[in-house]
Amino acid sequence: MVDLTELMENEVFMAFASYTTIILSKMMFMSTATAFFRLTRKVFANPEDCVGFGKGENAKKYLRTDDKVERVRRAHLNDLENIVPFLGIGLLYSLSGPDLSTAILHFRLFVGARIYHTVAYLTPLPQPNRALAFFLGYGVTFSMAYRLLKSRLYL
Amino acid sequence: MVDLTELMENEVFMAFASYTTIILSKMMFMSTATAFFRLTRKVFANPEDCVGFGKGENAKKYLRTDDKVERVRRAHLNDLENIVPFLGIGLLYSLSGPDLSTAILHFRLFVGARIYHTVAYLTPLPQPNRALAFFLGYGVTFSMAYRLLKSRLYL
Amino acid sequence: MVDLTELMENEVFMAFASYTTIILSKMMFMSTATAFFRLTRKVFANPEDCVGFGKGENAKKYLRTDDKVERVRRAHLNDLENIVPFLGIGLLYSLSGPDLSTAILHFRLFVGARIYHTVAYLTPLPQPNRALAFFLGYGVTFSMAYRLLKSRLYL
Repeated sequence: MVDLTELMENEVFMAFASYTTIILSKMMFMSTATAFFRLTRKVFANPEDCVGFGKGENAKKYLRTDDKVERVRRAHLNDLENIVPFLGIGLLYSLSGPDLSTAILHFRLFVGARIYHTVAYLTPLPQPNRALAFFLGYGVTFSMAYRLLKSRLYL
Repeated sequence: MVDLTELMENEVFMAFASYTTIILSKMMFMSTATAFFRLTRKVFANPEDCVGFGKGENAKKYLRTDDKVERVRRAHLNDLENIVPFLGIGLLYSLSGPDLSTAILHFRLFVGARIYHTVAYLTPLPQPNRALAFFLGYGVTFSMAYRLLKSRLYL
Repeated sequence: MVDLTELMENEVFMAFASYTTIILSKMMFMSTATAFFRLTRKVFANPEDCVGFGKGENAKKYLRTDDKVERVRRAHLNDLENIVPFLGIGLLYSLSGPDLSTAILHFRLFVGARIYHTVAYLTPLPQPNRALAFFLGYGVTFSMAYRLLKSRLYL
Protein backbone atom coordinates (compact mmCIF):
# COMPACT_ATOMS: atom_id res chain seq x y z
CA MET A 1 0.00 0.00 0.00
CA VAL A 2 1.24 3.43 -1.00
CA ASP A 3 1.63 6.25 1.46
CA LEU A 4 -0.39 9.10 0.02
CA THR A 5 0.37 11.48 2.83
CA GLU A 6 3.24 12.82 0.73
CA LEU A 7 0.65 14.58 -1.44
CA MET A 8 -0.62 16.28 1.69
CA GLU A 9 2.90 17.41 2.57
CA ASN A 10 2.89 19.65 -0.48
CA GLU A 11 2.13 23.13 0.86
CA VAL A 12 0.13 24.34 -2.16
CA PHE A 13 -2.02 21.23 -2.03
CA MET A 14 -2.59 21.57 1.73
CA ALA A 15 -3.62 25.20 1.26
CA PHE A 16 -5.98 24.21 -1.55
CA ALA A 17 -7.46 21.49 0.67
CA SER A 18 -8.02 23.93 3.54
CA TYR A 19 -9.61 26.73 1.51
CA THR A 20 -11.73 24.28 -0.49
CA THR A 21 -13.04 22.63 2.66
CA ILE A 22 -13.95 26.02 4.09
CA ILE A 23 -15.78 27.25 1.00
CA LEU A 24 -17.63 23.94 0.50
CA SER A 25 -18.70 24.02 4.16
CA LYS A 26 -19.98 27.55 3.60
CA MET A 27 -21.92 26.33 0.57
CA MET A 28 -23.46 23.52 2.62
CA PHE A 29 -24.58 26.12 5.15
CA MET A 30 -26.92 27.47 2.44
CA SER A 31 -28.99 24.28 2.72
CA THR A 32 -29.45 24.94 6.42
CA ALA A 33 -30.38 28.55 5.70
CA THR A 34 -33.02 27.40 3.19
CA ALA A 35 -34.42 24.90 5.70
CA PHE A 36 -34.45 27.57 8.42
CA PHE A 37 -36.43 30.07 6.32
CA ARG A 38 -38.78 27.34 5.04
CA LEU A 39 -39.64 26.29 8.60
CA THR A 40 -39.88 29.75 10.19
CA ARG A 41 -41.88 31.19 7.27
CA LYS A 42 -43.87 28.00 6.62
CA VAL A 43 -43.06 27.91 2.92
CA PHE A 44 -42.72 24.47 1.39
CA ALA A 45 -42.23 22.86 -2.00
CA ASN A 46 -43.56 19.37 -1.20
CA PRO A 47 -46.98 18.36 0.21
CA GLU A 48 -45.38 15.83 2.58
CA ASP A 49 -43.37 18.65 4.22
CA CYS A 50 -46.50 20.54 5.30
CA VAL A 51 -48.20 17.71 7.16
CA GLY A 52 -46.99 18.88 10.56
CA PHE A 53 -48.65 22.28 10.00
CA GLY A 54 -52.21 21.20 9.24
CA LYS A 55 -54.28 18.64 7.39
CA GLY A 56 -55.76 18.42 3.89
CA GLU A 57 -56.57 21.78 2.30
CA ASN A 58 -55.29 23.55 5.40
CA ALA A 59 -51.78 22.21 4.77
CA LYS A 60 -51.80 22.97 1.05
CA LYS A 61 -51.73 26.69 1.67
CA TYR A 62 -48.08 26.31 2.74
CA LEU A 63 -47.13 25.11 -0.75
CA ARG A 64 -46.01 28.52 -1.90
CA THR A 65 -42.92 30.54 -2.75
CA ASP A 66 -41.39 33.26 -0.63
CA ASP A 67 -39.00 36.08 -1.57
CA LYS A 68 -36.51 35.31 1.18
CA VAL A 69 -36.45 31.54 0.49
CA GLU A 70 -36.03 32.14 -3.24
CA ARG A 71 -33.21 34.57 -2.52
CA VAL A 72 -31.32 31.97 -0.46
CA ARG A 73 -31.90 29.39 -3.20
CA ARG A 74 -30.52 31.73 -5.87
CA ALA A 75 -27.46 32.42 -3.71
CA HIS A 76 -26.99 28.66 -3.27
CA LEU A 77 -27.24 27.98 -7.01
CA ASN A 78 -24.82 30.82 -7.74
CA ASP A 79 -22.40 29.22 -5.26
CA LEU A 80 -22.70 25.88 -7.06
CA GLU A 81 -22.14 27.52 -10.45
CA ASN A 82 -18.95 29.19 -9.25
CA ILE A 83 -17.51 26.76 -6.71
CA VAL A 84 -17.64 23.76 -9.09
CA PRO A 85 -15.23 25.44 -11.58
CA PHE A 86 -13.01 26.53 -8.66
CA LEU A 87 -12.97 22.94 -7.40
CA GLY A 88 -11.92 21.45 -10.75
CA ILE A 89 -9.60 24.18 -12.00
CA GLY A 90 -8.15 24.83 -8.54
CA LEU A 91 -7.29 21.15 -8.02
CA LEU A 92 -5.49 20.90 -11.35
CA TYR A 93 -3.79 24.27 -10.82
CA SER A 94 -2.56 23.12 -7.39
CA LEU A 95 -1.02 20.03 -8.97
CA SER A 96 0.70 22.03 -11.72
CA GLY A 97 3.38 23.31 -9.36
CA PRO A 98 2.48 27.00 -8.95
CA ASP A 99 4.34 29.44 -6.73
CA LEU A 100 3.07 29.02 -3.13
CA SER A 101 2.34 32.69 -2.42
CA THR A 102 0.62 33.19 -5.79
CA ALA A 103 -1.53 30.12 -5.20
CA ILE A 104 -2.52 31.17 -1.68
CA LEU A 105 -3.40 34.64 -2.96
CA HIS A 106 -5.76 33.05 -5.50
CA PHE A 107 -7.39 30.82 -2.88
CA ARG A 108 -7.82 33.64 -0.34
CA LEU A 109 -9.30 36.04 -2.86
CA PHE A 110 -11.75 33.40 -4.09
CA VAL A 111 -12.90 32.33 -0.63
CA GLY A 112 -13.18 35.94 0.54
CA ALA A 113 -15.11 36.95 -2.60
CA ARG A 114 -17.61 34.09 -2.25
CA ILE A 115 -18.22 34.75 1.45
CA TYR A 116 -18.76 38.45 0.68
CA HIS A 117 -21.06 37.44 -2.21
CA THR A 118 -23.26 35.48 0.20
CA VAL A 119 -23.37 38.36 2.70
CA ALA A 120 -24.22 40.81 -0.11
CA TYR A 121 -26.92 38.49 -1.47
CA LEU A 122 -28.64 37.67 1.81
CA THR A 123 -28.53 41.09 3.53
CA PRO A 124 -29.08 42.35 0.71
CA LEU A 125 -26.43 45.01 0.17
CA PRO A 126 -27.02 47.51 -2.67
CA GLN A 127 -25.39 46.76 -5.98
CA PRO A 128 -22.60 46.68 -7.13
CA ASN A 129 -21.49 44.87 -3.94
CA ARG A 130 -22.75 41.47 -5.11
CA ALA A 131 -21.64 42.02 -8.72
CA LEU A 132 -18.10 42.92 -7.67
CA ALA A 133 -17.84 39.91 -5.35
CA PHE A 134 -19.07 37.70 -8.19
CA PHE A 135 -16.59 39.07 -10.73
CA LEU A 136 -13.67 38.85 -8.29
CA GLY A 137 -14.29 35.12 -7.73
CA TYR A 138 -14.86 34.66 -11.45
CA GLY A 139 -11.61 36.45 -12.32
CA VAL A 140 -9.59 34.39 -9.83
CA THR A 141 -10.86 31.14 -11.38
CA PHE A 142 -10.10 32.37 -14.89
CA SER A 143 -6.62 33.42 -13.80
CA MET A 144 -5.94 29.87 -12.56
CA ALA A 145 -7.41 28.40 -15.77
CA TYR A 146 -5.20 30.68 -17.87
CA ARG A 147 -2.01 29.73 -16.00
CA LEU A 148 -2.91 26.06 -16.23
CA LEU A 149 -3.59 26.11 -19.97
CA LYS A 150 -0.53 28.26 -20.66
CA SER A 151 1.86 25.84 -18.94
CA ARG A 152 0.21 22.43 -19.42
CA LEU A 153 -1.92 22.43 -22.55
CA TYR A 154 -2.19 18.92 -23.97
CA LEU A 155 -5.03 18.31 -26.41
CA MET B 1 6.01 8.97 -18.10
CA VAL B 2 5.02 8.40 -14.49
CA ASP B 3 3.05 5.39 -13.36
CA LEU B 4 0.02 6.76 -11.62
CA THR B 5 -1.45 3.39 -10.85
CA GLU B 6 0.22 3.56 -7.44
CA LEU B 7 -2.39 6.11 -6.39
CA MET B 8 -5.04 3.56 -7.27
CA GLU B 9 -3.31 0.92 -5.16
CA ASN B 10 -4.15 2.94 -2.07
CA GLU B 11 -7.17 1.23 -0.55
CA VAL B 12 -8.84 4.37 0.82
CA PHE B 13 -8.50 6.06 -2.56
CA MET B 14 -9.88 3.02 -4.41
CA ALA B 15 -12.84 2.90 -2.05
CA PHE B 16 -13.46 6.63 -2.56
CA ALA B 17 -13.27 6.11 -6.32
CA SER B 18 -15.79 3.25 -6.21
CA TYR B 19 -18.37 4.96 -3.97
CA THR B 20 -18.02 8.26 -5.84
CA THR B 21 -18.55 6.59 -9.20
CA ILE B 22 -21.67 4.87 -7.85
CA ILE B 23 -23.22 8.01 -6.37
CA LEU B 24 -22.40 10.13 -9.43
CA SER B 25 -23.99 7.47 -11.66
CA LYS B 26 -27.07 7.58 -9.44
CA MET B 27 -27.16 11.36 -9.82
CA MET B 28 -26.94 11.03 -13.60
CA PHE B 29 -29.93 8.69 -13.48
CA MET B 30 -32.00 11.69 -12.33
CA SER B 31 -31.58 13.23 -15.81
CA THR B 32 -33.06 10.09 -17.34
CA ALA B 33 -35.91 10.16 -14.81
CA THR B 34 -36.67 13.79 -15.72
CA ALA B 35 -36.63 12.95 -19.45
CA PHE B 36 -38.86 9.91 -18.82
CA PHE B 37 -41.53 11.93 -16.96
CA ARG B 38 -41.32 14.79 -19.47
CA LEU B 39 -41.97 12.41 -22.37
CA THR B 40 -44.66 10.23 -20.74
CA ARG B 41 -46.52 13.24 -19.27
CA LYS B 42 -45.86 15.54 -22.25
CA VAL B 43 -44.48 18.36 -20.12
CA PHE B 44 -41.75 20.44 -21.72
CA ALA B 45 -39.72 23.54 -21.02
CA ASN B 46 -38.65 24.37 -24.59
CA PRO B 47 -40.85 24.98 -27.68
CA GLU B 48 -38.51 22.90 -29.88
CA ASP B 49 -39.10 19.86 -27.64
CA CYS B 50 -42.87 19.83 -28.32
CA VAL B 51 -42.68 19.75 -32.12
CA GLY B 52 -43.19 16.01 -32.31
CA PHE B 53 -46.47 16.32 -30.37
CA GLY B 54 -48.29 18.83 -32.54
CA LYS B 55 -47.88 22.03 -34.53
CA GLY B 56 -48.17 25.72 -33.70
CA GLU B 57 -50.62 26.55 -30.91
CA ASN B 58 -51.38 22.85 -30.48
CA ALA B 59 -47.78 22.19 -29.44
CA LYS B 60 -47.55 25.17 -27.09
CA LYS B 61 -49.97 23.61 -24.63
CA TYR B 62 -47.21 21.17 -23.65
CA LEU B 63 -45.04 24.07 -22.40
CA ARG B 64 -46.14 23.63 -18.80
CA THR B 65 -44.94 22.45 -15.41
CA ASP B 66 -45.91 19.23 -13.70
CA ASP B 67 -45.71 18.22 -10.04
CA LYS B 68 -43.88 14.96 -10.71
CA VAL B 69 -41.34 16.53 -13.08
CA GLU B 70 -40.67 19.39 -10.65
CA ARG B 71 -40.23 16.85 -7.85
CA VAL B 72 -37.57 14.95 -9.81
CA ARG B 73 -35.85 18.22 -10.65
CA ARG B 74 -35.77 19.27 -6.99
CA ALA B 75 -34.33 15.87 -6.03
CA HIS B 76 -31.69 16.28 -8.75
CA LEU B 77 -30.72 19.77 -7.56
CA ASN B 78 -30.55 18.56 -3.96
CA ASP B 79 -28.21 15.80 -5.15
CA LEU B 80 -25.97 18.36 -6.85
CA GLU B 81 -25.92 20.58 -3.74
CA ASN B 82 -24.83 17.66 -1.56
CA ILE B 83 -22.70 15.50 -3.85
CA VAL B 84 -20.46 18.40 -4.93
CA PRO B 85 -19.22 19.00 -1.34
CA PHE B 86 -18.80 15.22 -0.87
CA LEU B 87 -16.74 15.08 -4.06
CA GLY B 88 -14.37 17.86 -3.02
CA ILE B 89 -14.11 17.17 0.69
CA GLY B 90 -14.11 13.38 0.21
CA LEU B 91 -11.25 13.53 -2.29
CA LEU B 92 -9.09 15.64 0.00
CA TYR B 93 -10.06 13.55 3.03
CA SER B 94 -9.07 10.37 1.14
CA LEU B 95 -5.66 11.86 0.40
CA SER B 96 -5.09 12.90 4.03
CA GLY B 97 -4.35 9.36 5.15
CA PRO B 98 -7.44 8.42 7.17
CA ASP B 99 -8.01 5.03 8.78
CA LEU B 100 -9.39 2.64 6.12
CA SER B 101 -12.40 1.37 8.08
CA THR B 102 -13.37 4.89 9.23
CA ALA B 103 -13.14 6.18 5.68
CA ILE B 104 -15.24 3.33 4.26
CA LEU B 105 -17.85 3.88 6.97
CA HIS B 106 -18.12 7.53 5.89
CA PHE B 107 -18.44 6.61 2.20
CA ARG B 108 -21.03 3.89 2.82
CA LEU B 109 -23.19 6.07 5.06
CA PHE B 110 -23.10 8.92 2.54
CA VAL B 111 -23.96 6.76 -0.47
CA GLY B 112 -26.69 4.93 1.46
CA ALA B 113 -28.16 8.20 2.76
CA ARG B 114 -28.27 9.78 -0.71
CA ILE B 115 -29.88 6.72 -2.32
CA TYR B 116 -32.47 6.64 0.46
CA HIS B 117 -33.00 10.39 0.01
CA THR B 118 -33.88 9.85 -3.65
CA VAL B 119 -36.26 6.99 -2.81
CA ALA B 120 -37.91 9.11 -0.09
CA TYR B 121 -38.20 12.09 -2.44
CA LEU B 122 -39.60 10.29 -5.47
CA THR B 123 -42.02 7.87 -3.75
CA PRO B 124 -42.67 10.18 -1.74
CA LEU B 125 -42.28 8.76 1.75
CA PRO B 126 -43.73 10.77 4.65
CA GLN B 127 -41.39 13.08 6.52
CA PRO B 128 -39.02 12.83 8.36
CA ASN B 129 -37.67 10.09 6.05
CA ARG B 130 -36.25 12.55 3.54
CA ALA B 131 -35.06 14.99 6.20
CA LEU B 132 -33.17 12.27 8.09
CA ALA B 133 -31.54 10.98 4.90
CA PHE B 134 -30.50 14.55 4.07
CA PHE B 135 -29.01 15.24 7.50
CA LEU B 136 -27.16 11.91 7.59
CA GLY B 137 -25.38 12.69 4.30
CA TYR B 138 -24.81 16.26 5.49
CA GLY B 139 -23.32 15.08 8.77
CA VAL B 140 -21.00 12.61 7.07
CA THR B 141 -19.59 15.35 4.84
CA PHE B 142 -19.11 17.69 7.80
CA SER B 143 -17.39 14.91 9.73
CA MET B 144 -14.87 14.50 6.90
CA ALA B 145 -14.42 18.29 6.65
CA TYR B 146 -13.79 18.49 10.40
CA ARG B 147 -11.16 15.72 10.35
CA LEU B 148 -9.48 17.30 7.35
CA LEU B 149 -9.28 20.79 8.86
CA LYS B 150 -8.21 19.44 12.25
CA SER B 151 -5.24 17.56 10.82
CA ARG B 152 -4.24 19.61 7.77
CA LEU B 153 -5.21 23.24 8.24
CA TYR B 154 -2.91 25.50 6.23
CA LEU B 155 -4.20 29.02 5.60
CA MET C 1 8.32 19.19 0.18
CA VAL C 2 7.27 16.79 -2.52
CA ASP C 3 7.52 17.62 -6.20
CA LEU C 4 4.02 17.17 -7.53
CA THR C 5 4.94 18.08 -11.06
CA GLU C 6 5.40 14.36 -11.73
CA LEU C 7 1.61 13.99 -11.65
CA MET C 8 1.42 16.60 -14.37
CA GLU C 9 3.98 14.71 -16.45
CA ASN C 10 1.47 11.91 -16.89
CA GLU C 11 0.00 12.43 -20.34
CA VAL C 12 -3.51 11.18 -19.54
CA PHE C 13 -3.67 13.46 -16.51
CA MET C 14 -2.40 16.45 -18.51
CA ALA C 15 -5.02 15.79 -21.18
CA PHE C 16 -7.74 15.51 -18.51
CA ALA C 17 -6.54 18.79 -16.97
CA SER C 18 -6.65 20.58 -20.33
CA TYR C 19 -10.08 19.37 -21.42
CA THR C 20 -11.56 19.91 -17.97
CA THR C 21 -10.26 23.46 -17.81
CA ILE C 22 -11.77 24.17 -21.23
CA ILE C 23 -15.20 22.77 -20.43
CA LEU C 24 -15.34 24.44 -17.00
CA SER C 25 -14.40 27.76 -18.63
CA LYS C 26 -17.21 27.22 -21.13
CA MET C 27 -19.60 26.57 -18.25
CA MET C 28 -18.51 29.79 -16.54
CA PHE C 29 -19.28 31.64 -19.76
CA MET C 30 -22.96 30.79 -19.15
CA SER C 31 -22.95 33.17 -16.16
CA THR C 32 -21.77 35.97 -18.43
CA ALA C 33 -24.45 35.05 -20.98
CA THR C 34 -27.14 35.22 -18.27
CA ALA C 35 -25.86 38.59 -17.07
CA PHE C 36 -25.74 39.87 -20.68
CA PHE C 37 -29.36 38.93 -21.40
CA ARG C 38 -30.53 40.23 -18.00
CA LEU C 39 -28.96 43.63 -18.66
CA THR C 40 -29.92 44.02 -22.34
CA ARG C 41 -33.50 42.78 -21.76
CA LYS C 42 -33.87 44.42 -18.34
CA VAL C 43 -35.03 41.23 -16.63
CA PHE C 44 -33.99 40.82 -13.01
CA ALA C 45 -34.55 38.49 -10.09
CA ASN C 46 -33.59 40.85 -7.25
CA PRO C 47 -35.03 44.29 -6.40
CA GLU C 48 -31.54 45.70 -5.71
CA ASP C 49 -30.48 44.86 -9.28
CA CYS C 50 -33.16 47.12 -10.82
CA VAL C 51 -32.27 50.30 -8.96
CA GLY C 52 -30.23 51.70 -11.84
CA PHE C 53 -33.25 51.44 -14.15
CA GLY C 54 -35.82 53.44 -12.18
CA LYS C 55 -37.14 54.08 -8.69
CA GLY C 56 -39.85 52.51 -6.54
CA GLU C 57 -42.74 50.99 -8.50
CA ASN C 58 -41.04 51.96 -11.75
CA ALA C 59 -38.11 49.63 -10.96
CA LYS C 60 -40.28 46.73 -9.82
CA LYS C 61 -41.60 46.13 -13.31
CA TYR C 62 -38.16 44.71 -14.20
CA LEU C 63 -38.61 41.89 -11.67
CA ARG C 64 -39.85 39.41 -14.24
CA THR C 65 -38.86 36.32 -16.15
CA ASP C 66 -37.90 36.16 -19.80
CA ASP C 67 -37.80 33.22 -22.20
CA LYS C 68 -34.25 33.84 -23.36
CA VAL C 69 -32.88 34.31 -19.83
CA GLU C 70 -34.65 31.16 -18.60
CA ARG C 71 -33.26 29.25 -21.60
CA VAL C 72 -29.68 30.26 -20.74
CA ARG C 73 -30.30 29.32 -17.10
CA ARG C 74 -31.61 25.88 -18.07
CA ALA C 75 -28.56 25.34 -20.29
CA HIS C 76 -26.33 26.37 -17.39
CA LEU C 77 -28.03 23.99 -14.95
CA ASN C 78 -27.83 21.17 -17.48
CA ASP C 79 -24.11 21.87 -17.79
CA LEU C 80 -23.71 21.63 -14.01
CA GLU C 81 -25.68 18.37 -13.87
CA ASN C 82 -23.44 16.80 -16.51
CA ILE C 83 -20.04 18.38 -15.94
CA VAL C 84 -19.96 17.53 -12.22
CA PRO C 85 -20.13 13.75 -12.91
CA PHE C 86 -17.53 14.17 -15.67
CA LEU C 87 -15.26 16.02 -13.22
CA GLY C 88 -15.45 13.32 -10.56
CA ILE C 89 -15.53 10.21 -12.73
CA GLY C 90 -13.04 11.64 -15.25
CA LEU C 91 -10.51 12.45 -12.53
CA LEU C 92 -10.67 8.96 -11.04
CA TYR C 93 -10.65 7.39 -14.51
CA SER C 94 -7.53 9.41 -15.43
CA LEU C 95 -5.78 8.11 -12.34
CA SER C 96 -6.72 4.48 -13.04
CA GLY C 97 -4.12 4.13 -15.81
CA PRO C 98 -6.26 4.04 -18.98
CA ASP C 99 -4.86 3.83 -22.49
CA LEU C 100 -3.85 7.36 -23.62
CA SER C 101 -5.69 7.35 -26.96
CA THR C 102 -8.87 5.87 -25.43
CA ALA C 103 -8.82 8.47 -22.66
CA ILE C 104 -8.31 11.38 -25.07
CA LEU C 105 -11.15 10.07 -27.25
CA HIS C 106 -13.45 10.14 -24.21
CA PHE C 107 -12.39 13.68 -23.24
CA ARG C 108 -12.73 15.04 -26.80
CA LEU C 109 -16.17 13.51 -27.33
CA PHE C 110 -17.43 14.86 -24.01
CA VAL C 111 -16.11 18.40 -24.54
CA GLY C 112 -17.37 18.45 -28.14
CA ALA C 113 -20.78 17.13 -27.10
CA ARG C 114 -21.22 19.72 -24.33
CA ILE C 115 -20.16 22.62 -26.57
CA TYR C 116 -22.59 21.42 -29.24
CA HIS C 117 -25.28 21.05 -26.55
CA THR C 118 -24.87 24.72 -25.61
CA VAL C 119 -25.03 25.82 -29.26
CA ALA C 120 -28.12 23.66 -29.83
CA TYR C 121 -29.78 25.01 -26.66
CA LEU C 122 -29.10 28.69 -27.20
CA THR C 123 -29.70 28.97 -30.98
CA PRO C 124 -32.07 26.91 -30.58
CA LEU C 125 -31.54 24.14 -33.12
CA PRO C 126 -34.46 21.77 -33.78
CA GLN C 127 -34.52 18.51 -31.84
CA PRO C 128 -32.96 15.95 -31.75
CA ASN C 129 -29.76 18.05 -31.96
CA ARG C 130 -29.77 18.91 -28.26
CA ALA C 131 -30.93 15.44 -27.20
CA LEU C 132 -28.17 13.72 -29.16
CA ALA C 133 -25.50 16.06 -27.76
CA PHE C 134 -26.83 15.35 -24.26
CA PHE C 135 -26.80 11.57 -24.69
CA LEU C 136 -23.33 11.57 -26.25
CA GLY C 137 -21.87 13.37 -23.23
CA TYR C 138 -23.90 11.14 -20.92
CA GLY C 139 -22.68 7.98 -22.65
CA VAL C 140 -19.04 9.07 -22.50
CA THR C 141 -19.29 9.61 -18.72
CA PHE C 142 -20.98 6.24 -18.23
CA SER C 143 -18.31 4.56 -20.33
CA MET C 144 -15.61 5.97 -18.03
CA ALA C 145 -17.62 4.96 -14.94
CA TYR C 146 -18.01 1.43 -16.30
CA ARG C 147 -14.28 1.03 -17.00
CA LEU C 148 -13.43 2.41 -13.59
CA LEU C 149 -15.78 0.11 -11.70
CA LYS C 150 -14.78 -2.91 -13.79
CA SER C 151 -11.09 -2.52 -13.00
CA ARG C 152 -11.04 -0.90 -9.55
CA LEU C 153 -14.16 -1.83 -7.60
CA TYR C 154 -13.47 -1.75 -3.87
CA LEU C 155 -16.54 -1.58 -1.65
